[in-house]
Amino acid sequence: MKSSQAIILNNPKKRNALSLSMLESLRENILTDVDGEDLRVIVISAEGPVFSSGHDLKELTSLQGREYHAKVFHTCSEVMTLIQDVPVPVIAMVNGVATAAGCQLVASCDIAVATDKSSFATPGVNVGLFCSTPAVAIGRAVPRKVAMEMLFTGSPISAQEALLHGLISKVVPEERLEEETLAIAQRVCRASRPVVALGKATFQRQMAQGRDAAYATASKVMVDNLALRDGQEGIRAFLEKRQPVWSHKTEKAPP
Amino acid sequence: MKSSQAIILNNPKKRNALSLSMLESLRENILTDVDGEDLRVIVISAEGPVFSSGHDLKELTSLQGREYHAKVFHTCSEVMTLIQDVPVPVIAMVNGVATAAGCQLVASCDIAVATDKSSFATPGVNVGLFCSTPAVAIGRAVPRKVAMEMLFTGSPISAQEALLHGLISKVVPEERLEEETLAIAQRVCRASRPVVALGKATFQRQMAQGRDAAYATASKVMVDNLALRDGQEGIRAFLEKRQPVWSHKTEKAPP
Amino acid sequence: MKSSQAIILNNPKKRNALSLSMLESLRENILTDVDGEDLRVIVISAEGPVFSSGHDLKELTSLQGREYHAKVFHTCSEVMTLIQDVPVPVIAMVNGVATAAGCQLVASCDIAVATDKSSFATPGVNVGLFCSTPAVAIGRAVPRKVAMEMLFTGSPISAQEALLHGLISKVVPEERLEEETLAIAQRVCRASRPVVALGKATFQRQMAQGRDAAYATASKVMVDNLALRDGQEGIRAFLEKRQPVWSHKTEKAPP
Repeated sequence: MKSSQAIILNNPKKRNALSLSMLESLRENILTDVDGEDLRVIVISAEGPVFSSGHDLKELTSLQGREYHAKVFHTCSEVMTLIQDVPVPVIAMVNGVATAAGCQLVASCDIAVATDKSSFATPGVNVGLFCSTPAVAIGRAVPRKVAMEMLFTGSPISAQEALLHGLISKVVPEERLEEETLAIAQRVCRASRPVVALGKATFQRQMAQGRDAAYATASKVMVDNLALRDGQEGIRAFLEKRQPVWSHKTEKAPP
Repeated sequence: MKSSQAIILNNPKKRNALSLSMLESLRENILTDVDGEDLRVIVISAEGPVFSSGHDLKELTSLQGREYHAKVFHTCSEVMTLIQDVPVPVIAMVNGVATAAGCQLVASCDIAVATDKSSFATPGVNVGLFCSTPAVAIGRAVPRKVAMEMLFTGSPISAQEALLHGLISKVVPEERLEEETLAIAQRVCRASRPVVALGKATFQRQMAQGRDAAYATASKVMVDNLALRDGQEGIRAFLEKRQPVWSHKTEKAPP
Repeated sequence: MKSSQAIILNNPKKRNALSLSMLESLRENILTDVDGEDLRVIVISAEGPVFSSGHDLKELTSLQGREYHAKVFHTCSEVMTLIQDVPVPVIAMVNGVATAAGCQLVASCDIAVATDKSSFATPGVNVGLFCSTPAVAIGRAVPRKVAMEMLFTGSPISAQEALLHGLISKVVPEERLEEETLAIAQRVCRASRPVVALGKATFQRQMAQGRDAAYATASKVMVDNLALRDGQEGIRAFLEKRQPVWSHKTEKAPP
C-alpha cells in the first residue's frame, strides 16, 4: 500500500483533453484508494507540454446532442467537487499550458505547484463557449477582476501572475518540479490521516458559512479533533519533545 | 452602429464629481445602446487629471435633506449594479485619481486599465462620511485588510498596489493607456455577443451561490451555450481550423 | 482618558500562548474602555520574539476534558469576533512569529503592521490538531490556496508573502515598527468616533450579504451617516476649507 496516489493525464497527443472517458477515469482513479487507511495525498500531473486543454470539443458538437453534453458537464463538475471533498489533499503538478476545464482542474486542487513556463487561460469565449463552469472554480480562487479579464479576453496569464493572485501555490524551475512537489507531498504525508481529513472537510464546510456559524462549526471540530487518539498523541508528543506516532485511525483517545 | 460605446466623465472642473445629474446621465449613457445587437463593449473614461472624486459634497448637506440624499445613493447603487448587470463587458480607462464613489466606479467595472500615476482612495472618513457604499464594491474586489485600511485611514493606494490586490486589471504608462485599453476592448469585441452576455450574467449569478448550486447553474448554462447558433459555429470553426463567423443573435443552432 | 488603548501580550516565556486566562484577559482589556467616548483605536502587540504561539497545548490534553476544551475554543472565538465587532479599529503590531491562534489573532484585526522578520503559520497539523478555528479567520483574509497550503503543510509564510496575500497590511523594518504603527493609529484617531463605528459595523454587515442587499444596507447607512452631527460638520468643514471639529457624539445634526 502506498501513501501517495499519482494520477497522470496520459493523452498528450490530444493535449490531455478532458473527454468524458478521461473524466470518468479521473474520477475512478481519485476514488480507487481514497478510503484506504494508508493514502495520505493525491498528485495529479500530465504527460507532454500541455497539462490539459479542457473539454474535447469534438464531444460538444450538435451531433452528440443535449443529453450527452449534459452528461459531460455533470461528470466534470463531479470530478472537480470530488477533488475538494475527498479526505486527502490533492496536489496539481503542472508543467505547461492549462486551459478551460484544464485550468478549472488546477483551480480545484488544494495545492498547485507549477513550472515557470506554465500558463493558464479560459479561452472558451474565442470558440463561442464561455468558460462558465471553469469560472466556478477560478472565481473562487482569484480576485474577481482577474477572473473576469481571463474569461472575457481569453488571454493567458503566466505562472507568476497565477501565483500572485492565488490560482497556484508555488512556481519552480522545470528541473525542480518533481522534487518540490514531492517535498510538499511528503510534508503532507507526515500528518495523521483522520486529522487532515477532518481539517479538510471542515475548511470546505465553514468557508460556505457566515462567520459566526463558521466559528460554531470549527470550535466544535477542534474539540472533536482533541478527542481523537491522534489528537492526544500529537499534543503529548509535543509536550514530551518527541516525534508523534500516529495510529491514522479514526478512533477516540482512551479516556 | 458601433460595437464600442465610449462614456466620458466630462466635468473636470468639478473633478468629475458624481453628482445626481452626472449619475443619471451615466445611467442613461450605459442604457442607450446596451440592447443593440451591435454593441460589444462599454469603455468609461474621464477628462482631466481626476478620474472622479466621488459624490458632490454640495449635494449632501442638510439643505437638501434626507429624501434627496436617499435619491443620490439609490441612483448611485443603481449605476454601479447596472454596470455589472448589462450584457456587455464594461472597461474603466483610468488616468488619475479615483476616490470614494469614483473608486467604487472603477471597482464595479469588469475590467480596469490604469496609468501608473493613477491612485485610488476612500477618504470619506476624513470628511465624516464613511465610504460605506464604495466598500460594497471594493470589499468584493480586494482582500479585506486592504479594503479596511483604505476605509479606516483614507490613505490612497498606488496603481501598482491596486493591481497587486485585484482592484484593477492592468497598469500602463500614460502614453499607452488608450492603445492598451483599445487592444483589450477589441479582443472583447471579437467574441459573440450572446455568448458573452450569457457568460457575464452567469458569472454574477453563480458567484452569489454556494459551490454546488453554482456548478448546477453553470453546467446547465454550458449546455444552453452549446445549443446557441454561435456556440456551434465556434466549435465547428475550431475543428475546421477557420475563423468563426458569428451571427451575434440569441437563436438556437439548427438541429 | 486616552484615545488609544494598548494591549500587550506579556507572557514571552510561554511564547505569549493564548491560554484560557490570557484569552479572558484579552477580552477584558478589549472591553474595558471600548464604549468610552474618547477611545478611537486599539493596538495589540506582544513582548518578546514570539507574537503568539496560539493555544497553550498543556490546556488541551485529555486531563482537562471535553468541557474545558469547549470553553477554551468558545472563548477564543468570542475574542476573535469581538475584535471585529467593537466600534473602534483594532490594529495588530507584530514583531516575530505568529502561529495557530496567534496567526488567527493577526488575521482577525482590522489592520496589521508587521516587521520584515515576522512570519505566520498554522502548524497545528504537525501536532495532530488541525488549525480549523484559525482557518475561519485566515480563510477569509487570503486566497483559498494560500490558506490551504498553510493549513496542510504547517509551513510558515514570510511577512512579504503575508502582505502580498492580504494577511497583513504593511511590512516595515524592525526599528520603524512603533513609528509606522503609531502613524496609522493617529490617522485613524483623527476621524469621528461614531462615523468610524458606523462604518466598521456596516462593513462587517454588508460583506455577509449578497450584493443587492449589501447596497440596500449601505445606502441607508450613508443617509444615516449624513444625518449625524459629525457627518454634517465634516462636509461643511470641507466646503468651507477648514479642519472639522468633531463632537464624537452619536447625535443627529440640527435640522
